[in-house]
Amino acid sequence: MPELRKDPVVGRWVVFSPERQIRPERYKCEELLPTRPEDNPFLEGHEAYTPAELYAIRPGGGAANGPGWQLRVVSNRYPALRVEGELEKEAVGFYDRMNGIGAHEVIVETPHPKLVLEKQNLAGVARVFESCRARILDLSRDQRLHYALVFKNHGAMAGATMPHPHTQLIAMPVTPIVLKEKLAAGREYYVEKDRSLFGDILQAERKVGDRVVFENDGFTVFCPFASRFPFETCIMPRQQAADFQSSKDEVLVQLAEAVQRVLQAYAAALNQPSYNLILHNAPFRRSRQPNAWTTIDADFRWHVEILPRLTGVAGFEFGTGFYINPTLPEEAAGILREALTRG
Amino acid sequence: MPELRKDPVVGRWVVFSPERQIRPERYKCEELLPTRPEDNPFLEGHEAYTPAELYAIRPGGGAANGPGWQLRVVSNRYPALRVEGELEKEAVGFYDRMNGIGAHEVIVETPHPKLVLEKQNLAGVARVFESCRARILDLSRDQRLHYALVFKNHGAMAGATMPHPHTQLIAMPVTPIVLKEKLAAGREYYVEKDRSLFGDILQAERKVGDRVVFENDGFTVFCPFASRFPFETCIMPRQQAADFQSSKDEVLVQLAEAVQRVLQAYAAALNQPSYNLILHNAPFRRSRQPNAWTTIDADFRWHVEILPRLTGVAGFEFGTGFYINPTLPEEAAGILREALTRG
Repeated sequence: MPELRKDPVVGRWVVFSPERQIRPERYKCEELLPTRPEDNPFLEGHEAYTPAELYAIRPGGGAANGPGWQLRVVSNRYPALRVEGELEKEAVGFYDRMNGIGAHEVIVETPHPKLVLEKQNLAGVARVFESCRARILDLSRDQRLHYALVFKNHGAMAGATMPHPHTQLIAMPVTPIVLKEKLAAGREYYVEKDRSLFGDILQAERKVGDRVVFENDGFTVFCPFASRFPFETCIMPRQQAADFQSSKDEVLVQLAEAVQRVLQAYAAALNQPSYNLILHNAPFRRSRQPNAWTTIDADFRWHVEILPRLTGVAGFEFGTGFYINPTLPEEAAGILREALTRG
Repeated sequence: MPELRKDPVVGRWVVFSPERQIRPERYKCEELLPTRPEDNPFLEGHEAYTPAELYAIRPGGGAANGPGWQLRVVSNRYPALRVEGELEKEAVGFYDRMNGIGAHEVIVETPHPKLVLEKQNLAGVARVFESCRARILDLSRDQRLHYALVFKNHGAMAGATMPHPHTQLIAMPVTPIVLKEKLAAGREYYVEKDRSLFGDILQAERKVGDRVVFENDGFTVFCPFASRFPFETCIMPRQQAADFQSSKDEVLVQLAEAVQRVLQAYAAALNQPSYNLILHNAPFRRSRQPNAWTTIDADFRWHVEILPRLTGVAGFEFGTGFYINPTLPEEAAGILREALTRG
């Protein structure tokens, strides 16, 4: 019998429909065509083919925009948003628009074109999150910007166009709808119960346990009760914190371990799936935004979502905002836990 | 320079980023593998391979579940939701669930496996919408159900798994988030201005004209100001009506013409793209729902959206609820209008 489950944060119902289940090994894995080395701007020695670097880790020293780096952040060559110019907001007849001020950056995770996150050493994964922290701290000083989204599209089904391991950061002059919904739900819950919604979810998951995939001292990884996608995971910090960029080094290493374990479990259990990784973080300067989230430091908690792209987003999802998911999260978590023990 | 535009109904910002533009002829067209006739349950003479028929058009008479039909509606063999049973809603610890009561039906548009909507005659397209009306009217009498979504996934990129032309209908015991947002925006606008938001959008589009693709006596087709996808279209009835199923025959023929013209323009201009078609309709028995939409007959208008799937949905979209669209709607509308004149 199918089952409907409601996401406690955004109120989205998900239809769990086990009859539409596909066996994990039958999920399609669509690989990106390998880039020819001469076409890959993210290789060491190819620094001149990218826009100027914004941040880099060069343990042996060395000049910017030259070789010797472990990680490098550059502007996207085809940016969705641009840093230059004044922010202009205006009405266009009946409608509202603004110009596309913001930033669109690429975090080149490694000089090695095939060293995906799950094969990196722990320090290499932690460097990715350290660079995100540094870039968010820098961008948050730009008074025009409200929000910075860190995300990763891995594999063709997840929208990647370059196979070289990279993460993206887009900073924008408006707060995303998705965040507004999470912030509003967190505030409403806090006002009613004097407790954090995200803390209560974490507590509920740890108590029941059947959706938990992995834990270390800093994080709990679980498959959400109303997962939209088969094998979706949420990586939730156990300490309350609204701003990712306030995380200490030690926390970023714990995060790196949690992310790496999930990706290792996916690789082992699901035939190297495409995935989107999303870091949900609090907006900047919230007190100055139209709808101020005053209690945010107590009621919103930053977290990471990883969405394997084994099923599509189609008419039902666009028409309803709901999702059809063939795999119950308890089952998914069991398969991922087993992959980690084998692993 | 990129530009941000806000959708006036759901408040979603879309980033228009012409530098990321792809020339229409370079959009990928991913075809479904043709089904072997012996594996296609939607052919005439194969009626025994589908669940029992719920509705059919047989102009020459003939028994149900046999040949002689022009169109046939059957239950989905792997339904996301099921009609049988009592609706049971319950708390599961911290969370909410209900069992998957509902309906998941397939409208087989034609016995011909390659007769896509844009190649059908007008009566054939109108039959699809007449059958949707009949099925919605029937399902709306089921007291357990709140909503029926009609949608079509065409092509592999849009989530189709069967190439034989078909439309789907899913009836469910909850009102979709997408509809709740549209209803709430319509009501708020109506309370403030004593005018319909959807009527005002229609008027604004007809006045400016540069985003209008096609018009007949019943409908205006336009590319929305804040289109999420390149070449996205909205087909808006010019007469106020909240419920699609109250449409007269004449209106359904006008709708069929509008849909057919859009699909013909896509086929000519965009290399036969995959697309999702979605019918946004008012919920059933709204006065009995938790958040009653009392003025809905004046402030919500049913409409159709067609979303060509030329760009993906990836980390940015899942992380923000916003979209990145490389093509401005004024440009898209111009290309589609030209395709229709050539046509």
